[in-house]
Amino acid sequence: MLGLFQGKDRLIVHGKAPYNAEPPLDRLRAAFLTDQADFYVRSHGDIPDLDADSYRLTVDGMVAVPLDLSLADLKTRFAHVTVTAVMQCAGNRRADMLAVAPVSGDPWAPGAIGNAEWTGVRLADVLHAAGIDADDERHVAFESHDRIADTDTRFGASIPLAKALAPETLLAFAMNGEPLAPEHGHPLRVVVPGFAGIRSPKWLARITVQDRPSDNPMQTDDYKLFPPDVTAETADPTHGLTIEAMPLNSAICEPARGATLKAGRHAIRGYAIASDRAVARVDVSTDGGHNWAQARIERDTDAPYAWTFWEIERELTTGEHELAVRAWDSAGQTQPAAPDDTWNYKGYLSAAWHRVRVTVA
Amino acid sequence: MLGLFQGKDRLIVHGKAPYNAEPPLDRLRAAFLTDQADFYVRSHGDIPDLDADSYRLTVDGMVAVPLDLSLADLKTRFAHVTVTAVMQCAGNRRADMLAVAPVSGDPWAPGAIGNAEWTGVRLADVLHAAGIDADDERHVAFESHDRIADTDTRFGASIPLAKALAPETLLAFAMNGEPLAPEHGHPLRVVVPGFAGIRSPKWLARITVQDRPSDNPMQTDDYKLFPPDVTAETADPTHGLTIEAMPLNSAICEPARGATLKAGRHAIRGYAIASDRAVARVDVSTDGGHNWAQARIERDTDAPYAWTFWEIERELTTGEHELAVRAWDSAGQTQPAAPDDTWNYKGYLSAAWHRVRVTVA
Repeated sequence: MLGLFQGKDRLIVHGKAPYNAEPPLDRLRAAFLTDQADFYVRSHGDIPDLDADSYRLTVDGMVAVPLDLSLADLKTRFAHVTVTAVMQCAGNRRADMLAVAPVSGDPWAPGAIGNAEWTGVRLADVLHAAGIDADDERHVAFESHDRIADTDTRFGASIPLAKALAPETLLAFAMNGEPLAPEHGHPLRVVVPGFAGIRSPKWLARITVQDRPSDNPMQTDDYKLFPPDVTAETADPTHGLTIEAMPLNSAICEPARGATLKAGRHAIRGYAIASDRAVARVDVSTDGGHNWAQARIERDTDAPYAWTFWEIERELTTGEHELAVRAWDSAGQTQPAAPDDTWNYKGYLSAAWHRVRVTVA
Repeated sequence: MLGLFQGKDRLIVHGKAPYNAEPPLDRLRAAFLTDQADFYVRSHGDIPDLDADSYRLTVDGMVAVPLDLSLADLKTRFAHVTVTAVMQCAGNRRADMLAVAPVSGDPWAPGAIGNAEWTGVRLADVLHAAGIDADDERHVAFESHDRIADTDTRFGASIPLAKALAPETLLAFAMNGEPLAPEHGHPLRVVVPGFAGIRSPKWLARITVQDRPSDNPMQTDDYKLFPPDVTAETADPTHGLTIEAMPLNSAICEPARGATLKAGRHAIRGYAIASDRAVARVDVSTDGGHNWAQARIERDTDAPYAWTFWEIERELTTGEHELAVRAWDSAGQTQPAAPDDTWNYKGYLSAAWHRVRVTVA
């Protein structure tokens, strides 16, 4: 089916089927909580047409009491929890890796990210209701209602049990106080704060506790991080790093890349995110990274998985300027200057300094 | 007083008073648990001469029940816990930052680090016994028996309450099953796994729960991370990042820098550490970082705060070679190639690729 906001001209569309789209960066930066209408969509197949009234969720595998729950069961049996957290695609900012060498996948700008208040129930509460034995070696596998494009395989992925039991990990039925739109996983999705979006399946059908990661191709083959010297021909998926937690990243949302500005004082604004750590500092350069100034940062200290907004005003004189941003995390790590050392043929985890050229007329 | 192992010619001495010394890297890499005799020593004043029998620990501040405990009280009232964890100086590998520009402080090689089994009691248990109210805004300040060199001020530092209550944070009385040597904090020290050593005071005298960080100069002025453009003259300590969690790092321990080797197959070995994350991959280059191969890694999965050992064999032909190592953490972040962007005038958190030139004759 079509997404609720699809074709309404709010997003930059990378693909119609599967539907993949991201917002313009100025609209993304306009609000700390991203509207569903402005929230990026990453699909691997058609958007399922699911009826909330007849929806069922299965919980099985290594549990004492398998569950078969309606949405109403889920909402009445478990406490409702709201967590503000970023969701981002492992391919966010992939376009910047293309500057090094070709990569597979859609050329996402820095808009394959959004920040929402997710409301749902704790996955931990559901797993405990199913009588899970909290063995650290276990994995929680998810299966969705959507089928991976051009296959008969349903979408699936898994997370380690420890993250499944973490208090921030939800089965969510609402974003920013509204029911999930079809393209955002209606009626129920997983939300794994800090992890790449791939581990937060939409249109959730089944949760299986097992002693190994999911055997779905999304888990076993795709979404693996390789070194720069590995190619599609030489890659052995079992040697790649399974992408879970996302790296430190930041982006300039305003002004836009290629903008022509008047000489004078301009606000430079963007976001930064540090996965399970805090963003400790954000530096902005207007000369391609030779000199830096510290931006003001704005965050919700009660929401460690939300993004950090940053802003700085700089005087821009006539000519060409390369703006750049880099964030620092609470362990004193910063982003690499160039994407060369982290380049990988799938274009994942693109997190070098974000550079934006502007012309001042 | 003198350290138990001081002057026994096992360590490379940077300063005698205060006593600061680190082991040769081949000896450091020889065992997964670092002997006290081989463990780096970072002191800020004279080593106190403390008697375990008359030792007292005070717990006060924002607690319901202030405590005054002997070492025997501590050992009998609270459960004993052993945690394997790295301790490292915020200045570890500072020598590599000197290549960019002068920095203050001792020119530590990559030996200002060690990994030990620490035995003690959980700081959380002691704080709960003192009737602490677990308010996230609080800090736990430590005061030690040693005085900062050339001052009358006792050494002090603090950590956020959340880290003080974490299960890995200990008040330790033993390393690798032996009582702490004088230079390692006899009879009791703090151990804050994942944080820089500065937040793990030795010769602990007092624990104070308070609504602000410690006002000790070690907390307010020293051990702050600044951007490269800040100098000793321009630095405002309130603008620096308080160093707590340590960044991803790795080092080549064998062969030694400047070694002359025979042509043939050589083992290259070292350590890697990722603070509160896991080391996901270690790459080694024998041509200064142009080409990389993945090293085998060895770790204790039950000890997330221990270091990771790595090893690889490479054929080295006659001539000069620049060996290099870089680690990747579980969030897909890696170390910067050069120290330029992270250079800071105090030389903290030196974590660029570790490079070792060798000659093959």
